[in-house]
Amino acid sequence: MSFLAERMSRIDASGIRKVFALAANLQDPINLSIGQPDFDVDEAVKRDAIAAIESGLNKYTQTWGLDELREEASAYYQRRFGTPLENVMVTSGVSGGLFLALLATINPGDEVIFADPYFVMYKHLINLLGGVCRPVSTYPDFKFKAADIEAAITPKTKLIMVNSPCNPTGVTLNQAELKEIADLAAKHGLLVISDEIYEQFFFDGPPASMAGLCEHLIVLNGFSKMAGMTGWRVGFASGPADIIQQMNTLQQYTFVCAPSMAQKAAITALRIDTSEKIAAYKRKRDLIYEGLARKFNVVKPGGAFYIFPEAPGGDGDAFVAKAIQNNILVIPGSVFSERKSNFRLSFAADNATIERGVEALNKLAGEMA
Amino acid sequence: MSFLAERMSRIDASGIRKVFALAANLQDPINLSIGQPDFDVDEAVKRDAIAAIESGLNKYTQTWGLDELREEASAYYQRRFGTPLENVMVTSGVSGGLFLALLATINPGDEVIFADPYFVMYKHLINLLGGVCRPVSTYPDFKFKAADIEAAITPKTKLIMVNSPCNPTGVTLNQAELKEIADLAAKHGLLVISDEIYEQFFFDGPPASMAGLCEHLIVLNGFSKMAGMTGWRVGFASGPADIIQQMNTLQQYTFVCAPSMAQKAAITALRIDTSEKIAAYKRKRDLIYEGLARKFNVVKPGGAFYIFPEAPGGDGDAFVAKAIQNNILVIPGSVFSERKSNFRLSFAADNATIERGVEALNKLAGEMA
Repeated sequence: MSFLAERMSRIDASGIRKVFALAANLQDPINLSIGQPDFDVDEAVKRDAIAAIESGLNKYTQTWGLDELREEASAYYQRRFGTPLENVMVTSGVSGGLFLALLATINPGDEVIFADPYFVMYKHLINLLGGVCRPVSTYPDFKFKAADIEAAITPKTKLIMVNSPCNPTGVTLNQAELKEIADLAAKHGLLVISDEIYEQFFFDGPPASMAGLCEHLIVLNGFSKMAGMTGWRVGFASGPADIIQQMNTLQQYTFVCAPSMAQKAAITALRIDTSEKIAAYKRKRDLIYEGLARKFNVVKPGGAFYIFPEAPGGDGDAFVAKAIQNNILVIPGSVFSERKSNFRLSFAADNATIERGVEALNKLAGEMA
Repeated sequence: MSFLAERMSRIDASGIRKVFALAANLQDPINLSIGQPDFDVDEAVKRDAIAAIESGLNKYTQTWGLDELREEASAYYQRRFGTPLENVMVTSGVSGGLFLALLATINPGDEVIFADPYFVMYKHLINLLGGVCRPVSTYPDFKFKAADIEAAITPKTKLIMVNSPCNPTGVTLNQAELKEIADLAAKHGLLVISDEIYEQFFFDGPPASMAGLCEHLIVLNGFSKMAGMTGWRVGFASGPADIIQQMNTLQQYTFVCAPSMAQKAAITALRIDTSEKIAAYKRKRDLIYEGLARKFNVVKPGGAFYIFPEAPGGDGDAFVAKAIQNNILVIPGSVFSERKSNFRLSFAADNATIERGVEALNKLAGEMA
């Protein structure tokens, strides 16, 4: 007897986890698969979380979160991008915000356009809700271009998802490129969700945000990457008043609120200077890109902490299987894409691991050439 | 232009929040509306959360949560109810577990039977997912009886929701009463979800759980009430392997994991002795019940921290409006029921507030008699 709902047949467990299962027997692998920073939470942020716990900030907050954090998130965008955020609500990470946004807006049959390669969650959440995924290929330069998006628009298109810097390619869009997408959305009356979780990890040129670029826009951001708070489950969402209000109604019956002590500490996380950490990640980016470019066909990532080389021979699944046999843990591109030609490395690792990984992968590429 | 999904028309904001909005202008009200304990998190539990933060337990945990907490939850049920929990996963509170359980199982058109009066979340989540609510009246004694449930079963019934001790009535079911429901579910091939969030607040007779009573059972419990951790968002779910596996798949794309430091501290919360706190709540129960029974038609609650008297004249909405005018904050029964005859008081308040509330409500009842 099965009690499972039909919608469960439309999704499956993350392919990343299947790779981890494959790799479970590795002894001390060269691990370039991790989707979170290698630094711990800042001491000042920890102190604020601890003070919150000690002082009794352990009860439900308002559904929409602490007002001080909502205001600070808006002020942070004002400082960084010159535009404040409106109607901010605190979410349980960007994942929480993304789920509430899609649950509030996607009807069965609605089409959603997003860049391929894509963050895995997009595809599964859209399918779960009965929406229709319309991935737009961004190979080989991984730029999500307005012209390609426009070609994919149909009368059923409701939403464009933007993710810059991008997981898994690390490719960024500048302000002009984002504006083109915003104008296209406005022209066709489409909603935009901009997932800006990696926005502090912008290595080349000024960082860019969709904020303020179009009317029907939900901006999602959070603290998991910028502040190393992946386990603390705090983020924020900003958007049109009616959508944010409905996301709050949904939050009442699902997440209830983001963790109270983490909300309080997140205020500090928006105020501290992360420039040294980001500079260190830029050096990691240089290290891995320059190392791999000798043997691999690879696009230089402008942000995030991922790089997405083409596999020798064009079969990323086979290459990753071989890499795992050689004690190197990376993720096949097919997890993030309709194509299987590439693979993803994370450079959220110490430099010695990155150097060992580059050497081992180059050796493997040499053997397969 | 509206981008809202059709499913949003099937739910609305919690009626509790509407009452709070009504009451926003009250100065120092006699507040008997609060759905969380009046005690703070235990010092030992706080210390463990702080130690987790300091030691760097700030990253994602596994989707299903810390193994030590999963094992401790099972051992806790073994100690308390004589049956271990199987396939435990850590959830973001009981709300998180409830949402994942319903999302994994409810198809549009599936009927769900639950006791009326009911916890508000049940109705809204079932409607959100396209399920059909089949509330079964438990007036006037608020006992959820197998015979009444059986009369509500149709070929479309999939699920029975059980909540003992019950929010909003405080009424409890003993082991024999739960067993009758379990046997009925087995006879008709139905799934049971048992929401046991108030299970430590059992004042009369031995506490009872559905755990082990039937095969197709999801048990939900958490730390918000027993440990005063409402803002920390941790709970747990146990059930059939296939359902728990699908709930984990859903968790990957929604909650990701429960807050890391709160998971660690929750292990301690399951081990500490709460008997003094529960004894204090039993005295609060006696205080409010004996106080109100002089003027109100009221069922003595055996658990939780709610009491659900009948309003004088039978109109709970009108009575609550009058109570708010008199600076007493309580919730109309219509928020929790298809009937509006009653109202809910929470006795999660200090004894002086309870005494002031009883006196003021009795005075009001006298005026309306």
